[in-house]
Amino acid sequence: MSLSVPSPADFHVHLRQGALAALVTPHVREGGFTLAYVMPNLKPPITSTDQALAYKKDLEKIDPYVEYLMTLYLSPDLTPAEIRKAKAAGIVGVKSYPRGVTTNSEGGIESYEVYYPVFEVMQEVGMVLNLHGEIPSDTFTNTCVLNAEAKFLLHLIKLHRDFPKLRIVLEHATTRLAVETVKSLGPTVACTITAHHLALTVDDWAGQAFNYCKPVAKFPDDRAALQEVVREGHPRFFLGSDSAPHPPGTKSTCTPTHACAAGVYTSPILLPLVAHLLESFGALDKLENFTSTYGRAFYGRPVTKETETRVTLRKVEGKNIAEKWMLGQESVVPFWAGKDLNWEIVN
Amino acid sequence: MSLSVPSPADFHVHLRQGALAALVTPHVREGGFTLAYVMPNLKPPITSTDQALAYKKDLEKIDPYVEYLMTLYLSPDLTPAEIRKAKAAGIVGVKSYPRGVTTNSEGGIESYEVYYPVFEVMQEVGMVLNLHGEIPSDTFTNTCVLNAEAKFLLHLIKLHRDFPKLRIVLEHATTRLAVETVKSLGPTVACTITAHHLALTVDDWAGQAFNYCKPVAKFPDDRAALQEVVREGHPRFFLGSDSAPHPPGTKSTCTPTHACAAGVYTSPILLPLVAHLLESFGALDKLENFTSTYGRAFYGRPVTKETETRVTLRKVEGKNIAEKWMLGQESVVPFWAGKDLNWEIVN
Repeated sequence: MSLSVPSPADFHVHLRQGALAALVTPHVREGGFTLAYVMPNLKPPITSTDQALAYKKDLEKIDPYVEYLMTLYLSPDLTPAEIRKAKAAGIVGVKSYPRGVTTNSEGGIESYEVYYPVFEVMQEVGMVLNLHGEIPSDTFTNTCVLNAEAKFLLHLIKLHRDFPKLRIVLEHATTRLAVETVKSLGPTVACTITAHHLALTVDDWAGQAFNYCKPVAKFPDDRAALQEVVREGHPRFFLGSDSAPHPPGTKSTCTPTHACAAGVYTSPILLPLVAHLLESFGALDKLENFTSTYGRAFYGRPVTKETETRVTLRKVEGKNIAEKWMLGQESVVPFWAGKDLNWEIVN
Repeated sequence: MSLSVPSPADFHVHLRQGALAALVTPHVREGGFTLAYVMPNLKPPITSTDQALAYKKDLEKIDPYVEYLMTLYLSPDLTPAEIRKAKAAGIVGVKSYPRGVTTNSEGGIESYEVYYPVFEVMQEVGMVLNLHGEIPSDTFTNTCVLNAEAKFLLHLIKLHRDFPKLRIVLEHATTRLAVETVKSLGPTVACTITAHHLALTVDDWAGQAFNYCKPVAKFPDDRAALQEVVREGHPRFFLGSDSAPHPPGTKSTCTPTHACAAGVYTSPILLPLVAHLLESFGALDKLENFTSTYGRAFYGRPVTKETETRVTLRKVEGKNIAEKWMLGQESVVPFWAGKDLNWEIVN
């Protein structure tokens, strides 16, 4: 048995810099994808058009056969004029990180209202706002990693009300409430879902750093909601892997004063993994929509007959996932390392 | 500034076996305690009076100056006749582990009704039932480590209703609901609280195995409920450290196929740590009740003038917690290793 997907698109991926970028960028295609929506949380973050274009060139040097859609990091440096410049240069979105909630988010936002002039121009020129939808933990409001996403949703609702034509993507949703909230909003609001959040619950990352990411996987019923919305084939829910490589030592090892890095790495196995997962909950017939059609439609990047690259998957009896991927001194451990997948890409 | 506590009692501690027991058993007194309520989840578990007495002798060989209160592991091996024998031999309690929820709980119970003849005799002779209050995770009922305790509470309520004179201790409570439930029940139901659950929330163990234990620390509001009931000085809530040593490598290191061990180790710093924590939330005046009086009263082991050993603590400016404790090849990393405490024991 085999099936094929036209030009799979990953609408949320971390490709890093330097030697780590050289290792992981080719994994976009290795995992079956020809479009990568690239996150800007580098060190320093990508806050200007010029930086984004330089970064895009770096990535194209590593693998020119992937279409890289670039984003800027929302910060006080970002002006309405810079938005116009970015749009003219082909930059697609602006990513907002609440301060301190995930990798390299120390410069993240604290309040949205100061960015309204920026959002105004983004809405006008047609740039997408990508939201890391969590608020920072706070003892006094009983906020922690478990309800940080649910408590963020009021911000999403308000942003959509104030900018109804601004395309907004709630990234890597993990809760039933997030799914229901996005569904309840207008056609300009969409939602990415990662592969690993279709697989994990809190039990899987308790004591297991290789399954630990932000936002953390939640209750079984939350995972069920993510699976249901994929199975239902809702056109505003599509794949964004949030594939996030970290040096293996920062995942496998912690000390009493130093926690493990947050992030799950799925790029090199992404399309087979998504097929495996969708099949596991009866949604294999939604693979094309979830990994190509819906996201491309929302971003206005439909596949054309001229540009289409079909990727074919074949059903197999347990293909083992490699323990790690390496290049020179760099290495990275994938999600489900050592486990078996029931699909593989036909080269 | 100094203060003293008469004969501090730890009503829940894991002292292990062999070389690890030799390392950790002396830490009971090092941490300021002269009574240890000893958990029976060894390999193999302590299921008979003879085993418990042999284990007690082993512990007394290591440190004879601690009073060890022994427990049996609830399992189908345990008969009403064995309960009478255990009681006559001075064994104090029976510990119930739901199957598979924590360290060495593979032989844990699945249903309580089959044990009713045992509970009947325990009630009659005055043995205590110690409950690890979690039900096993189950996708189809949306049960995971976050609500496993809350969902267990119905079992507690039913056991108390069916055996109103049986003394029952809900061990290591982590949720506001558990606190409220125990409060609502009769005088035969009590609750232990660990030191670390007075300090941690889910954010602290996310990616940080040294703060990871079962039951997992929950929301800030749950931690607040534990702190409040200690500050309130409720006589049915007292210290049981659940101090649980693991070889440091099993805490610091995980692989994609092997998670970190669950358990937080507090024994060698226990009384100073509890003083530090109680002071941090305005409950230092409850130190004696929480660490000695209430637990001893519930278990019928009050301090007498003849047996009293006063332990004195002195306020200090940041006493650093050692990175590890060692004996031969064995070592163990304590909770908050490298952090400072504001209290130390006066030798």
